[in-house]
Amino acid sequence: MNALLTDLYQLTMAAGYLEAGKSRETATFELFVRRLPRNRNYLVAAGLEQVVEYLLGFRFTSDAIEYLRGLPQFAGARLEFFEFLAGLRFTGDLFAMPEGTPVFAGEPLLTVRAPLIEAQIPETYLLSSISFQTLIASKASRVAEIAAGRSVVEFGTRRAHSPEAGVLAARAAYIGGCAGTSNTLAGMRFGIPVFGTAAHSWVQAFAEEIEAFRQLQRLLGENTVYLIDTYDTLEGARKAASLGKPLWGVRLDSGNLVELSRAVRRILDEAGLPDAKIMTTGDLNEYKILEIMAAKAPIDAFGVGTDLATSADVPSLGAVYKLVELDGESSRRYTAKFSEGKGTMPGAKQVFRYPDRDLIGCSWECPSCGDHPQQQEALLKPVILGGELVEPSPCAKTIRQRAMERVRNLPAALHMLTDAQQPWKVEHSAELLALLDRVRHNQIGS
Amino acid sequence: MNALLTDLYQLTMAAGYLEAGKSRETATFELFVRRLPRNRNYLVAAGLEQVVEYLLGFRFTSDAIEYLRGLPQFAGARLEFFEFLAGLRFTGDLFAMPEGTPVFAGEPLLTVRAPLIEAQIPETYLLSSISFQTLIASKASRVAEIAAGRSVVEFGTRRAHSPEAGVLAARAAYIGGCAGTSNTLAGMRFGIPVFGTAAHSWVQAFAEEIEAFRQLQRLLGENTVYLIDTYDTLEGARKAASLGKPLWGVRLDSGNLVELSRAVRRILDEAGLPDAKIMTTGDLNEYKILEIMAAKAPIDAFGVGTDLATSADVPSLGAVYKLVELDGESSRRYTAKFSEGKGTMPGAKQVFRYPDRDLIGCSWECPSCGDHPQQQEALLKPVILGGELVEPSPCAKTIRQRAMERVRNLPAALHMLTDAQQPWKVEHSAELLALLDRVRHNQIGS
Repeated sequence: MNALLTDLYQLTMAAGYLEAGKSRETATFELFVRRLPRNRNYLVAAGLEQVVEYLLGFRFTSDAIEYLRGLPQFAGARLEFFEFLAGLRFTGDLFAMPEGTPVFAGEPLLTVRAPLIEAQIPETYLLSSISFQTLIASKASRVAEIAAGRSVVEFGTRRAHSPEAGVLAARAAYIGGCAGTSNTLAGMRFGIPVFGTAAHSWVQAFAEEIEAFRQLQRLLGENTVYLIDTYDTLEGARKAASLGKPLWGVRLDSGNLVELSRAVRRILDEAGLPDAKIMTTGDLNEYKILEIMAAKAPIDAFGVGTDLATSADVPSLGAVYKLVELDGESSRRYTAKFSEGKGTMPGAKQVFRYPDRDLIGCSWECPSCGDHPQQQEALLKPVILGGELVEPSPCAKTIRQRAMERVRNLPAALHMLTDAQQPWKVEHSAELLALLDRVRHNQIGS
Repeated sequence: MNALLTDLYQLTMAAGYLEAGKSRETATFELFVRRLPRNRNYLVAAGLEQVVEYLLGFRFTSDAIEYLRGLPQFAGARLEFFEFLAGLRFTGDLFAMPEGTPVFAGEPLLTVRAPLIEAQIPETYLLSSISFQTLIASKASRVAEIAAGRSVVEFGTRRAHSPEAGVLAARAAYIGGCAGTSNTLAGMRFGIPVFGTAAHSWVQAFAEEIEAFRQLQRLLGENTVYLIDTYDTLEGARKAASLGKPLWGVRLDSGNLVELSRAVRRILDEAGLPDAKIMTTGDLNEYKILEIMAAKAPIDAFGVGTDLATSADVPSLGAVYKLVELDGESSRRYTAKFSEGKGTMPGAKQVFRYPDRDLIGCSWECPSCGDHPQQQEALLKPVILGGELVEPSPCAKTIRQRAMERVRNLPAALHMLTDAQQPWKVEHSAELLALLDRVRHNQIGS
């Protein structure tokens, strides 16, 4: 793990904070999404496990420090700064929504409270980890919801934004509701079910299509999935059917999937293979699956690649990481930004979830304690305290179950593929609004 | 480097090829983009260095093999297969377009010729590496061209698809024409210039904005860039100007950049700081920069983040990796796919670039050798032969120069931000078309 994977300005600021005598001030930063993207009525929080790994392993190698010493930006920095970096570890606190939690605009997915420099440098890595996996888990949740119980498998590594992004996309897609992935390393690393049988090149590697099919059946038995569209799809279906059992089924990767699946279904049924399944792939997404479902096409499983692993219709989240509190030696300051369209709310927060709405309050609030405590849940929970892990990440399977249950419990309107007319209600507590007001009027601060 | 970072079907096919006695057949695969995306008149090839590293380090760890042995798909595989994987290395050939070469639809960016299994398993990693970096280098090229000599710096890691994608995006963006990046690890790893000074949180960390500015100036001297929009942009500009020299300039991150930059320019000029520069950031892309340039706003440099690091308008390339030749023990077969919308051309190819067009021919062709040899260039060059590196990657700076020169030499129409009416001409040689015809009529093959 390399603390150098950050924006340079985090490090120039670090040098400046040390110089200004501010390195022992304690900062609180919050990571949140300013607004939900178009056609997203909820997001599914993901990426926390990688954040925790990063913070626990946070350090500058001697190579990294050597490199920094040679940069023009640090020409004026004192030796003390580089020694400081060499000894730097994350000693602060991390509060976070558990992965798999539905999350909405303005709600902190995580809160970092640590000495200013330790809290500042991780910004870049944390934003990238959380926003990417949250993006993909949210997309996968839409796809899985629309498929309504038919399996969706994530096949997108080849189009992901780098091979490593493919591994993380596989994890996030599984959390969001996919049945598994084709990414074998993700399978090993995260215990995710892996799927896959053969490509077009397999069929082409044999002189005859039927020979390619026969060899596959010999190898995979009841896991066999024949890819039947290399030459002529219906001809391919007939050849596959002629081999009889064992097989899982066939896969279509091109053409009109609704019409072809019906014709292939007939061929399989007439060959006495009513249990043989049909999987389709080929530039699928939630919108195309909706059409396929509406047409009642006899398709049993979907492989979804590019559009899922890149969240093609919404390829980024506007996630930000903002300073909300700063405890100096003699004073505490609550901070907010008031710039056009980019304002922020001051102070460390808690998100309370009620059956029909969320309430964002100050971290010290307990809005209905003793009243109806069972009806609310405080979503931000301690994960790292004083640099020590207090809440290890659950396995991906457990996170996936959490996500699917909680998404299922959201109102029906939020499951639409387009913007809901009645979005989930997110309110701010009276105390938080009063704090914002006091900060705006400079009534707080040194 | 982990060979397990691949789609599972590459490994089930590997087991099948071994079982079918095909592991010693030599396969040729080509990686290409089926069609140019909307609003892209050329692509800039990138990602080869990472492909070479992967192939030279290609191996299965004992952990990976242990994991595979436990998968249901390999329940029927023989011990021989796992032993085979343990000893597997890449012993084949890699031909590729040098990074920084403009490339068009249908043209192989690389060709892999190797024993079938060695050529098949890398598909996933190669596609992901090449298509992601090519995507970002191409986007960066558009942004840099529109900025017409004003610096563009890549600031997108926080929105990239994972932190590692941010590192590779920084590399690709630099290749495509950016002046540098904020990603410090990319700076160290690839020798890319790094930029960055301070964020809003720096300003907020001090009780007074002017104090934050003063500390920054003390630290960075003539590299100082004041971020002036935390509270009130023009007020921020006046405070920055009041500190006089040394400074590089100021940065605007919100609001109407055209109007604000004019007002800020006046403030700086009136303060006797005509050399102080204005940089802008905040959801920029080539379209917004075009507007800013058209309005002749006094902006000297652009920081581009999200839209660049995710190629937001085109977040994936339809890159594919297709089997084109297979040499068995007694026969050579040329392969092609004829499925709807996904057809491929058979046989290993070469791409010849002429001043006004490209010609894709068979690999053995030399269309105008002896005729006007200086007018054509064969773009695919040997990089790895027999598993040995023969052409080490140049440094990123050299690749960037190549890309910028070659992009500059493309016809003006291709530099438009929208689809050119006269796209670059890509033709197929008569020999290649004749080969396709013979394959279609099954005149070739065993």
